[in-house]
Amino acid sequence: MQHYVQELKKLLGDCVSTEPEVLQAHASDKWHASALPDAVVLATETRQVAEAMRFAAQYGIPVTARGAGVGYVGGCVPVKGGIVVSVAGMRRIIEVNEADGVAVVEAGVLTADLQEACLRKGWFYPPDPASRKESSIGGNIATNAGGPRCLKYGVTRTYVLGLEVVLADGRVLRCGGRTHKNKQGFDLVGLFCGSEGMLGIITQATLRIIPAPPARAALHASFPQFSLAAAAVQNVLQGGHLPAAMEITDAYTLAAARKHLGESVLPADAKGHIIVEIDGRADSIRSELLDIEKILYRTGASTVVSAESEEAVESIWQLRREFSYSLKATGLTKLNEDIVIPRSALVELVDFCAAMQQQTGIPVACFGHSGDGNIHTNIMVLKDAQGRDIRPPADALVNRLFCWVKEHGGSITGEHGIGLAKAPWFPDAVGPVAMDVHRAIKHALDPLNILNPGKMQL
Amino acid sequence: MQHYVQELKKLLGDCVSTEPEVLQAHASDKWHASALPDAVVLATETRQVAEAMRFAAQYGIPVTARGAGVGYVGGCVPVKGGIVVSVAGMRRIIEVNEADGVAVVEAGVLTADLQEACLRKGWFYPPDPASRKESSIGGNIATNAGGPRCLKYGVTRTYVLGLEVVLADGRVLRCGGRTHKNKQGFDLVGLFCGSEGMLGIITQATLRIIPAPPARAALHASFPQFSLAAAAVQNVLQGGHLPAAMEITDAYTLAAARKHLGESVLPADAKGHIIVEIDGRADSIRSELLDIEKILYRTGASTVVSAESEEAVESIWQLRREFSYSLKATGLTKLNEDIVIPRSALVELVDFCAAMQQQTGIPVACFGHSGDGNIHTNIMVLKDAQGRDIRPPADALVNRLFCWVKEHGGSITGEHGIGLAKAPWFPDAVGPVAMDVHRAIKHALDPLNILNPGKMQL
Repeated sequence: MQHYVQELKKLLGDCVSTEPEVLQAHASDKWHASALPDAVVLATETRQVAEAMRFAAQYGIPVTARGAGVGYVGGCVPVKGGIVVSVAGMRRIIEVNEADGVAVVEAGVLTADLQEACLRKGWFYPPDPASRKESSIGGNIATNAGGPRCLKYGVTRTYVLGLEVVLADGRVLRCGGRTHKNKQGFDLVGLFCGSEGMLGIITQATLRIIPAPPARAALHASFPQFSLAAAAVQNVLQGGHLPAAMEITDAYTLAAARKHLGESVLPADAKGHIIVEIDGRADSIRSELLDIEKILYRTGASTVVSAESEEAVESIWQLRREFSYSLKATGLTKLNEDIVIPRSALVELVDFCAAMQQQTGIPVACFGHSGDGNIHTNIMVLKDAQGRDIRPPADALVNRLFCWVKEHGGSITGEHGIGLAKAPWFPDAVGPVAMDVHRAIKHALDPLNILNPGKMQL
Repeated sequence: MQHYVQELKKLLGDCVSTEPEVLQAHASDKWHASALPDAVVLATETRQVAEAMRFAAQYGIPVTARGAGVGYVGGCVPVKGGIVVSVAGMRRIIEVNEADGVAVVEAGVLTADLQEACLRKGWFYPPDPASRKESSIGGNIATNAGGPRCLKYGVTRTYVLGLEVVLADGRVLRCGGRTHKNKQGFDLVGLFCGSEGMLGIITQATLRIIPAPPARAALHASFPQFSLAAAAVQNVLQGGHLPAAMEITDAYTLAAARKHLGESVLPADAKGHIIVEIDGRADSIRSELLDIEKILYRTGASTVVSAESEEAVESIWQLRREFSYSLKATGLTKLNEDIVIPRSALVELVDFCAAMQQQTGIPVACFGHSGDGNIHTNIMVLKDAQGRDIRPPADALVNRLFCWVKEHGGSITGEHGIGLAKAPWFPDAVGPVAMDVHRAIKHALDPLNILNPGKMQL
């Protein structure tokens, strides 16, 4: 045990743990990297986070913030050891206030719990990362989490009005507030959104909520060519519709789904598939659904299935989740890269992935949020005779993919962040000037480099 | 003429002006402060901005960026002299690309011109500051401009995907891009939005555009008490509606309007008034209008007028503009403070203003974006016997207003920014920790303090 830990325990008492199983439970997220901290602060209030941070600043000890710990890029892995400060125990929904249109929550509140608390009052917190039942608001903010509904409703940043943040020196910053507009100085709230624990530790957030849309409906459609599914995405938007979500799935994933779920689930010739969810007024939902159905058929859909009841809509989203499980059911490890491309480059991306697959024999499965070009590109790691992953060729493919994305004006991450997983590509993705600006800001707010050090190559 | 100006002219040629009328034209915005620069760079391309900035960094000369110059807080007044870099001549709309859902524009493009270019293709750039026909995108971004439609569509920041920014040392930063999601590192795009020319000079922007909503409609309603109008705002939202805009107007302004426009324009007993604009599908607009009309009557409206045609909707917005002109027609100077309060505090704000008015005899007129609590609070400066403004008591009232706003969890500016006008109150509004963070970021990106120096008390 590091010599400072006793002192930290004396300072903070029972919320400091050095139990081996606790250290282990705070060593990794959903990515493969892992590193043990010296101690974990299981914070239940901001004061503890601030005291831990002040202590760490005094001794120059690394501090890695952690929410629910379900990130995909190793963002909360304490690679430099030191202290993990977990805000997972800060789970109070302080208020859901319709009159002001705000919810105030502690950082450890699970996103789905917040959404349900709002819905019970007829209000709506739109950001919907797939992980929302297990990820916390603090983590959502630290990674500026997305989800399918961002097409219409925007990413997490759009809903953060105010933050309480513990700074690198242990001081508590309150920025923004509970007003829906705020032009008081620089956009500090925005700066901490997506800062991946490297500029401060988010302990509380004031979020914008909106009246829940009265009705929703969805449809899904299969196409004999992927390019037709991509064209349908464009045609729906060109038709004047702004769906809440538009998801697309490629031929490889659809074939895996037919194998996993049964052949009846999709037409045999389905090489592309889209899901469209719309929301709005009950008395226009049906006509909009019919309009979109027409557009889909006109674009070459072989089947279109509409869903108007809540149950039917949910079953379409269940199908979407099953696509993901179907890829897992292939038995192959999938490297899920949350790249984003300009929306018009969808077909080119899938063609490029098909070409990579043909050249290397490594399957590449694409599906995701087509409306905003955020396509989860899954590189399926082949196995050797002993059933072990053959990583090097798959890793080489990730590299080629990221190069292609950069050349095509895309982003190597739309939702998951940089963390450790994407750090090797980060400097090249943003360029040397942006790297200098990142370093200048990091140094300005964390001169000792103790906040989540070792990430983003900063 | 400062000795460096000749050298600057040699470097940049004809785009550098020292003509007295040009200097004068770049000395102020719509606020009262004024200061002459030594020279104006009338940039037509990024290269010139970068060279001017590099030159200024070499000699430590202040540089104040300027777009259309129609700000309300003296933000582009070159209080420390030096060089004004105007991007007003950078007016190319580079593309409006529906397939990617983006528009790429130079910083000097007028916001209304961009909106029209989008609408011609059936697409929509929602931010709508009242100044949109005369303000430029660069200025809108630098102040994170708002407008009535922010209630549903969000502020300028929500639509900025990528920026080209000239940094304090003359290097050109490109951040973000043309993808609708981007989690590559810190949110630099957000940091420059609203930075009021103090962190860099915005030269180009890539903006998110969305399909234009197919239909819109509006209604306006008068109430015998202001509190009923405020209650109506809450009831519309609680009824599950998210209007594009909701505007409120107080009794003082309504009385001025009846005087200026004729008594028939509003009921004699109108003490509160709201405008509601909705947009969406043509086949639900009418039923939504009827629903909202019912809510307004139920809340105590004495009259409700609906507008379904484009012309009728515009005439309601014309009435809104006339409210503003009616205040000007009183002959009094109005100090327009764009404060924001939590939405539930609307009535309290108006009561407070009425009490201030009663105590001091100085009229206070409130109207604005009630949906997001952004109320333009106009303190009407009385005149002495010679017709000169009696400023001190009005200024004292501004001070009391800002103190009240702070105590009630509000913001002293929602749209206009800090600049010079609100700088005296800025440190207190955000507090010492936030001030330190502002200074640290400012120093990190502009160590010589040459970018728009003398603003925000940084």
